[in-house]
Amino acid sequence: MIEIERKFLVSSLNFKNEAVSRTFIAQGFLTTEPERTVRVRVKGEQGYLTVKGISNVSGTSRREWEFEIPKTEAMDLLGLCPSVLEKNRFEVPVGSHLYEVDEFLGANAGLVLAEIELESEEEVFQRPNWLGKEVTGDVRYYNSQLSLSPYSEWGQTS
Amino acid sequence: MIEIERKFLVSSLNFKNEAVSRTFIAQGFLTTEPERTVRVRVKGEQGYLTVKGISNVSGTSRREWEFEIPKTEAMDLLGLCPSVLEKNRFEVPVGSHLYEVDEFLGANAGLVLAEIELESEEEVFQRPNWLGKEVTGDVRYYNSQLSLSPYSEWGQTS
Repeated sequence: MIEIERKFLVSSLNFKNEAVSRTFIAQGFLTTEPERTVRVRVKGEQGYLTVKGISNVSGTSRREWEFEIPKTEAMDLLGLCPSVLEKNRFEVPVGSHLYEVDEFLGANAGLVLAEIELESEEEVFQRPNWLGKEVTGDVRYYNSQLSLSPYSEWGQTS
Repeated sequence: MIEIERKFLVSSLNFKNEAVSRTFIAQGFLTTEPERTVRVRVKGEQGYLTVKGISNVSGTSRREWEFEIPKTEAMDLLGLCPSVLEKNRFEVPVGSHLYEVDEFLGANAGLVLAEIELESEEEVFQRPNWLGKEVTGDVRYYNSQLSLSPYSEWGQTS
């Protein structure tokens, strides 16, 4: 399937009042090459292996293939990943859309990102008051990049 | 599972007289890092996604996780791989073991490799007369390497 996703910073924690679910996610990447990322994820009681293909220029469309795998095997595979990222995911309905809001933990604590999936690049959607600046296509906010270069280390001079 | 595999060159095509099956395989790699290779394979009518983990020093033990996926999705994923390797696989019973013999095609034509899977590193097995030099642990003969540096280009001076 073709994914149209737009990604935003989140400016307040008020989204939690409107959330309908919260799930702990642990994930890592077996490869982070943008042309073919391979992600391992444990989400609740299920494991997943997800391959994402080449982005278009604007970064809003990527092809994605997701396979369910046993949770125990997903945990094995997380052990192969160079780093593991942990977050709580909240589902927040707004108008006719569903925002997925990720509150990152560990080395990315303090970062909160919201994503909305659209059927076309022109589709109109509501922006709730907790929604901040759009960061669609900004590679620093890719989960694959947050594994390598976590939020807590941004802006450090070396 | 832990795999104990030994790999050999094949010195004649006589193995075909003893083969009990022959299957066409197309495969590619989403990543070839030795610590975490991810292989896409179409074998007959089935697709597979296989992750292999870290080798021991001698190169005979690797952890492996294999997931069946639909053939159509495996063909999609082959399209993401930097190169696709094609071969005919023959199953050849010898004594109480089964050799898997791969006759490579395309850029690796001329190369034939036999593999045997053992339950321990000390296990005894028969060596048929068509079996050549052992190449276990020689990275040039890894399928991942044969994609990047095919047999037909070996020994070329550049």
